[in-house]
Amino acid sequence: MPGRWARYGRGRQTPNHAILHARRSVIIWSPSRTASSHNSTKEASKSNLEGGRTINPLAIELNEIIREGVPELYATLSALGRELYFPRGILTQTAEARQRAHLYNSTIGIATSQGKPLYLPGLMRFLRDMDPAEAFDYAPATGMSTLRELWREHQTEANPSLKGRSFSLPIVTSGITHALSICSDLFCDAGDLLLLPDKLWGNYRMIFGTRRGADIRQYPLFRDDGSLHAQAFREALLSFADRPKILVLLNFPNNPTGYSPHLEEAEAIRDALLEAAEAGANLVVMVDDAYFGLFYEEVTYKESLFSLISGVHPRLTAVKLDGATKEDYVWGFRLGFITFSLAGGDDLENVYRALEKKVGGLIRGTISNCSMLAQSLLLKAMKAPGYKEEKERNYRLLQDRYREVKEVVYRERYADAFRPYPFNSGYFMCVRLEEVDADTLREHLLDRY
Amino acid sequence: MPGRWARYGRGRQTPNHAILHARRSVIIWSPSRTASSHNSTKEASKSNLEGGRTINPLAIELNEIIREGVPELYATLSALGRELYFPRGILTQTAEARQRAHLYNSTIGIATSQGKPLYLPGLMRFLRDMDPAEAFDYAPATGMSTLRELWREHQTEANPSLKGRSFSLPIVTSGITHALSICSDLFCDAGDLLLLPDKLWGNYRMIFGTRRGADIRQYPLFRDDGSLHAQAFREALLSFADRPKILVLLNFPNNPTGYSPHLEEAEAIRDALLEAAEAGANLVVMVDDAYFGLFYEEVTYKESLFSLISGVHPRLTAVKLDGATKEDYVWGFRLGFITFSLAGGDDLENVYRALEKKVGGLIRGTISNCSMLAQSLLLKAMKAPGYKEEKERNYRLLQDRYREVKEVVYRERYADAFRPYPFNSGYFMCVRLEEVDADTLREHLLDRY
Repeated sequence: MPGRWARYGRGRQTPNHAILHARRSVIIWSPSRTASSHNSTKEASKSNLEGGRTINPLAIELNEIIREGVPELYATLSALGRELYFPRGILTQTAEARQRAHLYNSTIGIATSQGKPLYLPGLMRFLRDMDPAEAFDYAPATGMSTLRELWREHQTEANPSLKGRSFSLPIVTSGITHALSICSDLFCDAGDLLLLPDKLWGNYRMIFGTRRGADIRQYPLFRDDGSLHAQAFREALLSFADRPKILVLLNFPNNPTGYSPHLEEAEAIRDALLEAAEAGANLVVMVDDAYFGLFYEEVTYKESLFSLISGVHPRLTAVKLDGATKEDYVWGFRLGFITFSLAGGDDLENVYRALEKKVGGLIRGTISNCSMLAQSLLLKAMKAPGYKEEKERNYRLLQDRYREVKEVVYRERYADAFRPYPFNSGYFMCVRLEEVDADTLREHLLDRY
Repeated sequence: MPGRWARYGRGRQTPNHAILHARRSVIIWSPSRTASSHNSTKEASKSNLEGGRTINPLAIELNEIIREGVPELYATLSALGRELYFPRGILTQTAEARQRAHLYNSTIGIATSQGKPLYLPGLMRFLRDMDPAEAFDYAPATGMSTLRELWREHQTEANPSLKGRSFSLPIVTSGITHALSICSDLFCDAGDLLLLPDKLWGNYRMIFGTRRGADIRQYPLFRDDGSLHAQAFREALLSFADRPKILVLLNFPNNPTGYSPHLEEAEAIRDALLEAAEAGANLVVMVDDAYFGLFYEEVTYKESLFSLISGVHPRLTAVKLDGATKEDYVWGFRLGFITFSLAGGDDLENVYRALEKKVGGLIRGTISNCSMLAQSLLLKAMKAPGYKEEKERNYRLLQDRYREVKEVVYRERYADAFRPYPFNSGYFMCVRLEEVDADTLREHLLDRY
């Protein structure tokens, strides 16, 4: 029984220590032969200076790749974004061991028995058709590669204009909020400008404002006649074109109004962004596609805005934030994705890989990795026969409800009481109260119903 | 069918907007009656100033509770820690609605059908004895309350000295790394001192150093004779007693050496901390219990160090970071807990609640919430008959392996080649190579085995 007796467990991923399992001993060693002292370790990992701060040599390598490939992207990275790197050590050494060693395995992170993770049968009994490794093992920091490939196919299928465009392999995140917070860490320093509409998901304030000190500015999403106010967006954007960078967050179907643009409106948004980029602004445009796909009207533009703005200008970094949360009705799974699209460089793939390493390091330093169980389940579900039909059935149900709500809320007799904001997609709609105070009505409804 | 026709879905949690479902309409409204303009919204949520930075009034309320209750704790909060708050709005309004409204439910976040979350049957078929809500719904930002209560019982059972001590209800995190990164956000500003041993999990550098700019200082974990070097810890600690605060991270069973202290060694660590607190240092002592419970020797102290340092001094905030990851062999589940213990105040429960709100806001602004599926599974497993026996069986297996490894690595014939670092617990052990270069040996082993 090779491998059993000589190992009583394997430890949490330990980049400073390589763990190997030789014939009759368990060997773990430090990068240096002797116990590392404070000074030598510190010097080894923090020897270079950049802009007065110490920075890891691996981060410097990534920065050089990004700066050479797309300098406009480099200009938008936050101080933290520039310091991020993916640690060498156990993670890269594990990859080497998988390729080269076949007799024994004593690499990272988990206790095993007979080649499978040690597990509690009492947990396994709630799962069906799952291998223990699919449920209990660690996932890589950037996610299961099979799921990432499959999600990319799904993105291209749902957004046909993306075919042939340059965009990165999606990185798995623990929900779309996590993808947003990765963006805020990567791109936002205190005082950096973030442009948001006046109808927004309140958590953006916590993610970018409280956590990272963003200077949040807002523009009116709608004109008084209920159409999308692309002109207000354009004016706000151009008024800040002298800032060193502008972060923009677009969210359609919009939370909370449930509005998605027509093609002309979407194109007007893209044109405004291009105009600002031409005027010299370095833009990071985040597209929050949380409610993607739930479009109920013919005239609505059916692709993500990411399709329209990817690869259009070197000064426009497009970031797609999407996920299974709403698309696959798994709110509690915490599965999102983050995808980058760049323009201008000769070797964009290399820049995507550098960005991926920075994001991987950040994920590792925040939550280590995302749920393996959720990733395995989504992968199995997406590959199963009937997956698309089941999604279609749920979509039809929501569309029917949408039509009924729409039929009711525009009735004449409610006109004095409230006016709906434009809605055509997503999960909700939103009304503007005309006569009653919102909190008074809330109290009244709570007591009556 | 009340509730079906009038709602076609429910949206992501939206603190700025209350969503209510009245008899014949879906109503969502803004805090103000009219569309919020940039200025009015900004003024409403960011009207107060503290130390030159704008800060949310809810954060100020929490800060006052903490400052009045345990001023020494307040002194250790980071700038971000002081700005954190749990948003009012949909979250608190949902709680109110649950208490007061019984006829209709149109509160937060998910699409439902017949009172259950809408889901894909293709996903459900991989789960057994699970309700769709247990798998697919959102969990609260701080975790399922039933699981939190149960984990607290588990903590007290495994650490009998905690009985009667003051400590908070554990907050659910997405793994122990997430609990650590919460600590770094809550307590660590750039330049703040973090004291670590020279044998450590490398990710601490990413979590505290790269992400938050901690000034990391190290002390030797062992003396040359292989005993724990509590004296070095004490000296390092006292040498920094003039710093405004000191962050300390204790990790036993230690990753990577697999060492846990005897009672006398553990008490020496506690005494050093008390001495520093008496000398005026404000301490945040994080106890990383990732490998807790895997103790293989009689003489080892069998409780968490949290038991020894909780409630001992107002200037010592103890934070326990533990989780199911290793204890329940579910590495890929991403389930950890964070628990605080304070001393000195008259109404510590109130301070714990204030801290919990800050942590809840931070979780919401980083990943929204943790996996509901994983929480439901752990809860079911912990309540199932045979749970303790199954854990005991895995423990015995690891203990047997430990004994065999121990028997081998101390053999005379290896003495010239390597010397094991002290080990008595956890998943691994670690050797110091005497003659060979570590990387040369690694290459050799990769090619040979």
